[in-house]
Amino acid sequence: MSGVDVHICEVGPRDGLQNAHHLMPTAAKKAWISALAAAGLREIEVGSFVPPKLIPAMADTGEIVAHARTIPGLKVVALAPNVKGFQRAVEAGAHKIGFPVSASHMHSVSNVRMTPDEMVAQVKECCELRAALPADKRPEIEGAVATAFGCTLQGEVSESEVVRIAGLLVEAGVDCIALADTVGYANPAQMRRLYRKVRDAIGAKLDGVHLHNTRGLGLANALAAYEEGARAFDSSMGGLGGCPFAPGASGNVVTEDLVFMFESMGLNTGIDFDALLRAREILVNGIPEEPVYGHFAGAGLPKGFRRGAAA
Amino acid sequence: MSGVDVHICEVGPRDGLQNAHHLMPTAAKKAWISALAAAGLREIEVGSFVPPKLIPAMADTGEIVAHARTIPGLKVVALAPNVKGFQRAVEAGAHKIGFPVSASHMHSVSNVRMTPDEMVAQVKECCELRAALPADKRPEIEGAVATAFGCTLQGEVSESEVVRIAGLLVEAGVDCIALADTVGYANPAQMRRLYRKVRDAIGAKLDGVHLHNTRGLGLANALAAYEEGARAFDSSMGGLGGCPFAPGASGNVVTEDLVFMFESMGLNTGIDFDALLRAREILVNGIPEEPVYGHFAGAGLPKGFRRGAAA
Repeated sequence: MSGVDVHICEVGPRDGLQNAHHLMPTAAKKAWISALAAAGLREIEVGSFVPPKLIPAMADTGEIVAHARTIPGLKVVALAPNVKGFQRAVEAGAHKIGFPVSASHMHSVSNVRMTPDEMVAQVKECCELRAALPADKRPEIEGAVATAFGCTLQGEVSESEVVRIAGLLVEAGVDCIALADTVGYANPAQMRRLYRKVRDAIGAKLDGVHLHNTRGLGLANALAAYEEGARAFDSSMGGLGGCPFAPGASGNVVTEDLVFMFESMGLNTGIDFDALLRAREILVNGIPEEPVYGHFAGAGLPKGFRRGAAA
Repeated sequence: MSGVDVHICEVGPRDGLQNAHHLMPTAAKKAWISALAAAGLREIEVGSFVPPKLIPAMADTGEIVAHARTIPGLKVVALAPNVKGFQRAVEAGAHKIGFPVSASHMHSVSNVRMTPDEMVAQVKECCELRAALPADKRPEIEGAVATAFGCTLQGEVSESEVVRIAGLLVEAGVDCIALADTVGYANPAQMRRLYRKVRDAIGAKLDGVHLHNTRGLGLANALAAYEEGARAFDSSMGGLGGCPFAPGASGNVVTEDLVFMFESMGLNTGIDFDALLRAREILVNGIPEEPVYGHFAGAGLPKGFRRGAAA
């Protein structure tokens, strides 16, 4: 990841496909992940170790992790909702394991049948399990404070609760913290305010944001987070997965558009535009029934584009 | 316009319809403009005084201005490309007349068959003509520096040329200056840099931006401009007009999404969400063949939404 100004983690194979209306065949997933890595994405969240009965789209995550591990230089990320998922992710060989811990009590109970504090206890147990592993088998662990900007069930989520959970996750032993706008409620002013509050509480362990584009504010929120110090951004190619509550709206913030924004601002993402658009074609061919979104793919680079051009 | 934090000028009836692939009947335009005003838009660019042969969609601008003038409290804006257009706009009774002056030499010559300096001379002549009018007939005059962030013909546009033209427009006697990203090339870093440069040169006469969303950066650019001091924003309902170079991409930044962004940040736009969505329905019914864009219209307000909610 050296030499880049902004780290973009492609979460389409997990968050996108998990919310898609169609299944992508395993072979297509592998081809897509390889194409993403070839475009310069150094970190890809390839799947989730959840019960296959609950989310069939993630049933092949073990095989996908194994494939992704063969790609040189790629950090292979998997999501785990609990200790069992963590153990499966470790067995599969994920380099980094992410835990979503919802700051919304209602969302947490509804989603994982645990309170936020019970989820933190799971993360703590996983950090302890990791310490017992051989040094070369220990994955990086990220805690994502989910529904940090609001919740479709509960509505408002208190910022002090977000700060509290971020602090508990750091105490539990995670390596880094991200703030997740799980349902696309964030606005840029809130992003600045909350990012500062959490950073003031936990310092540099806060390094990323996970944004959705439900109300079109994804890039504006990414800009605000970047300007507050965030350097790690989750995004999904083609905004895959959409939003069941917003016809025509993409799911996660669109990778192609996010890369274009940062590159046009003069920031190096390490990602190649042409190769990124080829990966998008592979995505579209791999799951042709599923709509994809984004502006950059249609518009292309401005005439005479140079990164961060100024006159 | 008192009491609002951010002034949004709806330019859909001009910039949107001018670039649409279909014609909106005059009666539908009137109904749409009335609905926009009822939603709280206090400034609407209703049309352009260009030769009807060149742009048939603008042929009824005189009648539309007359209708819009009957709406209490509405500032009726019209665009003029030259002295003749200005005179027609004054005759029709526009409250404010905007002149686009392209900072791209190639764009200016291609678009209006005049160099940027020849366009400035036209604006100057109009400012002099205005001074000779009875006080109650004098329109406000805005100079918009078009293609300020780049040009599809010329590519890069020098920032010093943008500063120079803004300065000449102020000398010519305009009341206010806007920077226009006519073709959707701007990025937030460039927005901050250029907005500061122009403001340093001409001061508070710079008050607005006119943004397109061709590459999806419209709201991020609006955020950057707001944070640099811009308080007047052009936008188009439904991103009407699209972009011929970007299938699926909206034209101007989408009014509904822009209003949502600012309101969610705690800024008063004076605009009512429900009435805004009713105006969108009237737009869609008035020109049903034309695609509309935007995220807010599908997603709606977050649960428990309060303007600028913080916890």
